[in-house]
Amino acid sequence: MIWNDLKDYACEGDLVQLIGRSHQYFIVRLKSGSEFQSHRGVIKHDDLIGLQWGSQVLSHKGNPFYLMQPSLADVLKDIPRTSQILYPKDIGFILISMDIGPGKRVVEAGTGSGAFTTALAYAVGSEGMVYSYDVRPDIQKVAISNVAQLGMTDRVVFKQRDISDGFDEQGVDALFLDLPNPHDYLGPSRDALKAGGFLGGILPTANQMTLLLTALYRYDFAFVEVCEIMLRYYKTEPTRFRPTDRMVAHTGFLYFARPIIKNETVEGQSGKDTVEKDQEQDRS
Amino acid sequence: MIWNDLKDYACEGDLVQLIGRSHQYFIVRLKSGSEFQSHRGVIKHDDLIGLQWGSQVLSHKGNPFYLMQPSLADVLKDIPRTSQILYPKDIGFILISMDIGPGKRVVEAGTGSGAFTTALAYAVGSEGMVYSYDVRPDIQKVAISNVAQLGMTDRVVFKQRDISDGFDEQGVDALFLDLPNPHDYLGPSRDALKAGGFLGGILPTANQMTLLLTALYRYDFAFVEVCEIMLRYYKTEPTRFRPTDRMVAHTGFLYFARPIIKNETVEGQSGKDTVEKDQEQDRS
Amino acid sequence: MIWNDLKDYACEGDLVQLIGRSHQYFIVRLKSGSEFQSHRGVIKHDDLIGLQWGSQVLSHKGNPFYLMQPSLADVLKDIPRTSQILYPKDIGFILISMDIGPGKRVVEAGTGSGAFTTALAYAVGSEGMVYSYDVRPDIQKVAISNVAQLGMTDRVVFKQRDISDGFDEQGVDALFLDLPNPHDYLGPSRDALKAGGFLGGILPTANQMTLLLTALYRYDFAFVEVCEIMLRYYKTEPTRFRPTDRMVAHTGFLYFARPIIKNETVEGQSGKDTVEKDQEQDRS
Amino acid sequence: MIWNDLKDYACEGDLVQLIGRSHQYFIVRLKSGSEFQSHRGVIKHDDLIGLQWGSQVLSHKGNPFYLMQPSLADVLKDIPRTSQILYPKDIGFILISMDIGPGKRVVEAGTGSGAFTTALAYAVGSEGMVYSYDVRPDIQKVAISNVAQLGMTDRVVFKQRDISDGFDEQGVDALFLDLPNPHDYLGPSRDALKAGGFLGGILPTANQMTLLLTALYRYDFAFVEVCEIMLRYYKTEPTRFRPTDRMVAHTGFLYFARPIIKNETVEGQSGKDTVEKDQEQDRS
Repeated sequence: MIWNDLKDYACEGDLVQLIGRSHQYFIVRLKSGSEFQSHRGVIKHDDLIGLQWGSQVLSHKGNPFYLMQPSLADVLKDIPRTSQILYPKDIGFILISMDIGPGKRVVEAGTGSGAFTTALAYAVGSEGMVYSYDVRPDIQKVAISNVAQLGMTDRVVFKQRDISDGFDEQGVDALFLDLPNPHDYLGPSRDALKAGGFLGGILPTANQMTLLLTALYRYDFAFVEVCEIMLRYYKTEPTRFRPTDRMVAHTGFLYFARPIIKNETVEGQSGKDTVEKDQEQDRS
Repeated sequence: MIWNDLKDYACEGDLVQLIGRSHQYFIVRLKSGSEFQSHRGVIKHDDLIGLQWGSQVLSHKGNPFYLMQPSLADVLKDIPRTSQILYPKDIGFILISMDIGPGKRVVEAGTGSGAFTTALAYAVGSEGMVYSYDVRPDIQKVAISNVAQLGMTDRVVFKQRDISDGFDEQGVDALFLDLPNPHDYLGPSRDALKAGGFLGGILPTANQMTLLLTALYRYDFAFVEVCEIMLRYYKTEPTRFRPTDRMVAHTGFLYFARPIIKNETVEGQSGKDTVEKDQEQDRS
Repeated sequence: MIWNDLKDYACEGDLVQLIGRSHQYFIVRLKSGSEFQSHRGVIKHDDLIGLQWGSQVLSHKGNPFYLMQPSLADVLKDIPRTSQILYPKDIGFILISMDIGPGKRVVEAGTGSGAFTTALAYAVGSEGMVYSYDVRPDIQKVAISNVAQLGMTDRVVFKQRDISDGFDEQGVDALFLDLPNPHDYLGPSRDALKAGGFLGGILPTANQMTLLLTALYRYDFAFVEVCEIMLRYYKTEPTRFRPTDRMVAHTGFLYFARPIIKNETVEGQSGKDTVEKDQEQDRS
Repeated sequence: MIWNDLKDYACEGDLVQLIGRSHQYFIVRLKSGSEFQSHRGVIKHDDLIGLQWGSQVLSHKGNPFYLMQPSLADVLKDIPRTSQILYPKDIGFILISMDIGPGKRVVEAGTGSGAFTTALAYAVGSEGMVYSYDVRPDIQKVAISNVAQLGMTDRVVFKQRDISDGFDEQGVDALFLDLPNPHDYLGPSRDALKAGGFLGGILPTANQMTLLLTALYRYDFAFVEVCEIMLRYYKTEPTRFRPTDRMVAHTGFLYFARPIIKNETVEGQSGKDTVEKDQEQDRS
């Protein structure tokens, strides 16, 4: 069962979030007889089971905590990491740009810590499917556990394999490359995608992006878009409304492209893409 | 049937996207016997029906177009507008921040042109439900048509009513306020949300945000977050990689909050929210 | 004598910058017989005196340091602070927007730590003059010392006084308000400025800005501009070119305005300013 | 005489700015007997001569204009352009980062339209000097005229020459490269700069930056900084305070570096620069 099913009360076995003062939060699984321990005091799981979401509880030291169902974004931020993870600001835009919704079949390479795998599994729902590839078994093991924690094991097929040999799937709706050298895998990616499907990915450096852009045009991907997303939080004091002092400046460059069927009789089309792209530069 | 169902070929009745040089695109519904007309020439629908997605077709003037299934983001940008619409950059982050996925029940006020309604309907899937309120019947009419075009009519209940009288729903997972004066509707919003549910919205000005922040604390909403998302596109020439010249500077401030159950014995908690919030300012 | 006078070699009495590995730097005044001490080792001032700028020296522990003349920006970052200081990113734009150059007479209120005072004194040169007001004698004392360190004492007149009583100067070219409540001092500011002079300032919150904007129109200031400057650094590895991970998200909103002479016969002009301003919004 | 000398009234021969409704402005030189003509009507120069700065005048059609002394930023925006010009947001930060103030000797290559030449001439004052190189005589001609218009001819030496042959100057305080291939000119630049002087420049693309970064380390430049400045304007309505809708997304990457004297006995220092640079990444 998925972690955020509709229930008004916390039950044995639920994944819950305890939020203390200053918004520090902890995500734990309720188990009768267990205890939640932090430097702000102890709370017995039995005191939480049966309590309504949004309730306030006090630790044995008298410190208040709120009992909440964790959001996907909260879970993502809390995920045990073996590598750089995707942030919610990027995930949200990727999902909507690649049309990833209920029932879709999506390939991901590589798995990493499984943060994006989790987001994909949530978005495609019980009727969709995610195929996640990674060469490193130890890393994928963590992702498998992360997805299981959220009750979405049956939505993800994990594969420990080098994608140089190609993907097993064909005709998938979307394919996401979270790899440092995506330009090496555009052939297999094209083979796995359905006609007119969505290719996407993220890269940290401009050097990688220039390598990829060259390769995308060579492999007949078109409608290429590259962007970055900057998220700025504000202080929430009504009488002193202003941005926070610091922010994340960079996570990565996002890219999107779609495979086209190149017509021999009309040449130079993908080159045009680049040249005339500027007219659409401001769309958001 | 939803507009982007898996098919390799364009069929009669499909919503298709024709993308010309310089990425200008047109979204049309295929109907045998009809013609697509633009200043770049005419294409017969019958020449498109049966063609594989990603194929290139030539207009009678010899101008090339690609035949694609439109993405949700493409459809949103193309939607007939009666009012300011939400942009994909904001929609993606809202959906993930409010845990809106397959099976969720979501209330929206107001409907506007139905751009966000459409995104909600897509994300909650066939097992979820969207309840969309607007007091202006003429505006909602356009939204109803937009949702129908995408084959998602059965996922949305439209209501033409002033929400001052409250919402009909109770225990919804998420509630989104796309209104200029959300501070006036926090009571009804709280009543409609499930315990620990997600409240969200967008506001253009700082003045509106300060009014809302004051009201949120008064109505026992906590874990308030306010942010803005800046999206910057890059030119896609591999040998001249750089940001585009201009960008959208502002669409609105996004806000998120969750209703808590205030415990009488522990005072001043929500005030604390504000004061200690800065420690988490940099999370993204 | 000003700190950055043209000399090829470091001399007794010079303000010098020692930059170690990882760009950590120290600003010290050379004095024969003295020693520079850091956790990376000791360097005798006598070993630095007579050395060419840009030279590398080794501490007694063998750690390398470069001997440089500090830039104004380096000095500003190093200034002993009694309060929030202006950053170089804001200072540069303020100076150019307010036409502050050689020979200009400029009023500043309040002095603060003297970071901006220093930048003003440098820009107006030996033929200009800066008048800096602050009510807090202890704070201004630090600023006086900071300006003296850089050899620009004769370019600044410090005044310890409440500006509610007005400024002593008249006909100044520019006036900068670094105060939390500038809306209370627009009358005196107008009186001090020359016809068509430049008013400027910085404010941290949106709430303060809305108060000020209302007051500016009431006091016949026009051509009001409000902006913010975001500075993003890049990593300087040629093979991994990308923005740094984090950045400053907010220092303050900058505002600029110019006093006009209101003509009784033409009404509603300053109101127009606001309404039609958007047409120029994109200028940079 | 410099264009913005202190005078309370507009005089024959003055460069003046006429600002109409919606902040549209015109910069003209006053000449008795002449007329200012726009679609909003005609104003006789004789009606302006003798008028106080900040005064309102009406065109013959009754449209109001304000008479102002143009700021340097206003002049820069109005400059006749033969090529891409530097924006005030970048100019301000460049001047302060390179310590360009009264009395400094500065080299610029290439001249372009003379916008930055003008800003340099203003900043170094009557005791400083600017040496501006460009290989294209027709382009430099425009710049010479622009500088003359502002009364700063005696502060700039223009040279029509290819800088591959080196600069004539030695020991200059700062050197700015506004060229597409600065990596080709680092040797001559190093020769012209004083020990510990300031090198700076601007480049539009990431590709150019990676070429330059490699070259900078090879030519013993250190303390390399690369950044970009984003300027966001706000609407100035007090009751609807918010950013403007659109903004400039990119002008160029700014870079700064300083020549050091490489000590043979301490190896690998400049490589270290890069690696450890990240610790200072957030400074602004």
